[in-house]
Amino acid sequence: MDLSYNEDKEKRRRLTGEKTIRCCGQGENMEKYGFGVDVGGTSCKLGLFTDSGKLMEKWEIPTDTSEQGEHIIEHVAASLERRQRERGLADEQIIGVGIDTPGIAGRDGVVRGAVNLGWEACPVQEQLKMRLQKKVCVCNDANAAALGELWQGGGRGYRDMVMVTLGTGVGGAVILNGKVLAGAHGIAGEIGHMTVFHKEIERCVCGKYGCVEQYASAKGLIRITRKLLEKKDPYTILVDTPELSAKQILDAAKRGDRLALDAVEVLGKALGSALAAVAEVIDPEVFVIGGGIAGAGEIILRIVQKYYRPDVLPAGADIPFELARLGNDAGMYGSMKLLLDTSEEK
Amino acid sequence: MDLSYNEDKEKRRRLTGEKTIRCCGQGENMEKYGFGVDVGGTSCKLGLFTDSGKLMEKWEIPTDTSEQGEHIIEHVAASLERRQRERGLADEQIIGVGIDTPGIAGRDGVVRGAVNLGWEACPVQEQLKMRLQKKVCVCNDANAAALGELWQGGGRGYRDMVMVTLGTGVGGAVILNGKVLAGAHGIAGEIGHMTVFHKEIERCVCGKYGCVEQYASAKGLIRITRKLLEKKDPYTILVDTPELSAKQILDAAKRGDRLALDAVEVLGKALGSALAAVAEVIDPEVFVIGGGIAGAGEIILRIVQKYYRPDVLPAGADIPFELARLGNDAGMYGSMKLLLDTSEEK
Repeated sequence: MDLSYNEDKEKRRRLTGEKTIRCCGQGENMEKYGFGVDVGGTSCKLGLFTDSGKLMEKWEIPTDTSEQGEHIIEHVAASLERRQRERGLADEQIIGVGIDTPGIAGRDGVVRGAVNLGWEACPVQEQLKMRLQKKVCVCNDANAAALGELWQGGGRGYRDMVMVTLGTGVGGAVILNGKVLAGAHGIAGEIGHMTVFHKEIERCVCGKYGCVEQYASAKGLIRITRKLLEKKDPYTILVDTPELSAKQILDAAKRGDRLALDAVEVLGKALGSALAAVAEVIDPEVFVIGGGIAGAGEIILRIVQKYYRPDVLPAGADIPFELARLGNDAGMYGSMKLLLDTSEEK
Repeated sequence: MDLSYNEDKEKRRRLTGEKTIRCCGQGENMEKYGFGVDVGGTSCKLGLFTDSGKLMEKWEIPTDTSEQGEHIIEHVAASLERRQRERGLADEQIIGVGIDTPGIAGRDGVVRGAVNLGWEACPVQEQLKMRLQKKVCVCNDANAAALGELWQGGGRGYRDMVMVTLGTGVGGAVILNGKVLAGAHGIAGEIGHMTVFHKEIERCVCGKYGCVEQYASAKGLIRITRKLLEKKDPYTILVDTPELSAKQILDAAKRGDRLALDAVEVLGKALGSALAAVAEVIDPEVFVIGGGIAGAGEIILRIVQKYYRPDVLPAGADIPFELARLGNDAGMYGSMKLLLDTSEEK
């Protein structure tokens, strides 16, 4: 059975789901459910899943970042409660809530440094648990997305996976034996900040020079393209406007634009050589590349592998590269998976 | 209690040990024992340990690599049997044998590609088990050394450790949660073959260019020093003779020799930047540096950290660097630890 996500299937599942749930409401079948929540800077994605991992329904609410984001958790809780009520689900049918956010999620369930949300430190687990009286698992958004992709996306069927998310920045996560590697100081899987070009003179947001993120993120791709445009290469359809986007550059590259292709080569070189190093450290079963830039598809995989292969030991040359498949739903899936894993452990 | 290894303690332990064993022989105390064996290209190191991990006695036998090394396992078995007999230990007192060798140790207990020993493929586990009628665990020598250092050496007290061995080549191992990470294709922890200098024109033994091993191994250090000597820098006591050794270079560096220090800087840069990448992938609790070159001591740690720190995210800057402490005994310790871990699991 193919569980990859798409609109048609979601509709079918929703229909099926509602039927099942009505049964449950009538006490004929006490199937269990859980909520997966992905809190982003603009919106929160919420999903209702069966305990076997089927997505029954998903919806979004805007993220209210006013007043240092102090209403975010309350809004999420209210939305989940409302959905539970509308579905006629009993409290004992809900295993709990898995929730991911930007920032660093501590073992105490407190999220620290989620700048996008206005949080310095937010006791997400405590707040949500108090409010809903349900089990709550909290994790970082990049880790959740990776777990989601491993569960039902590009990494499905594997246990050891490295995921890289090429978005505004470059996120990363290492999964070993089905579990996200946290690391001793919270920096495991920080592939975006591996130093790849020691001669870089511009500074990365992290304070270092020559990080993967400076070349392989949307911002990085635009930065590199602008540098190339300064050289006034005539062989390009791109122009240096304030609106120049990663998508424009990737579209131009796909149409064979030489300058755009040069910029994508820099991206491939930075990420490919970093992933070769990753392979020689943890030797995963699969690499999964996601995020907006990976939306360009095969061209990205091809160019990353072009630089990956000569840099890695022969035994690692054929580690497969897959595109992420769950898009913006990955975090929601991963949060639910974390909830399921944690429930199993107890 | 300090369990770090030294001669005096060994003597004390041996004495204590013999007493204990005599007791056992008399049936008063059925303490259990195990053998840890480290098979090297020149000699095999053998140790008798209590099941609580105390080394009672260690000895060596030459490694007979004649006839494609087909007598090695037989000689090890005979030596272990003899020692058991001399000690008056009953069969039921011996948990088993942990043994490490160069090459890749498969889950089937077969060692492949141990070129130094003359083995193409050797069914170490089966041979030793048949011969001794005891439980046998087989692992790779670099992994065993790392496990040994974690257990009773530089990594003692930690669970997540990265070990690098700077010998003729550069070996590496990743230990997470007390277990060696094997990787999906046998290349996990291959820190010696992470590419660090993309512009290198000489080829590494692995076939790639710019690997850590080309700068941070004994061979690498000599190679770099020779290159610097070609420039005829007058500020050095070193001369390019066929006998030029890593030890000479390191001694000269310790005495402030400018050219030797320059060579050590290259070593530090290669290893430091590779370990920064390692930190951003798996984020260990500690780095342990061993092997002949690490025998130079603090100078190596200092220079590696000099290049490590600016290359790693701030949260990883203070990961401790320790020197390995068990020297050539590390593999023997690690083999015994593997035996104990495997016995516990069952």
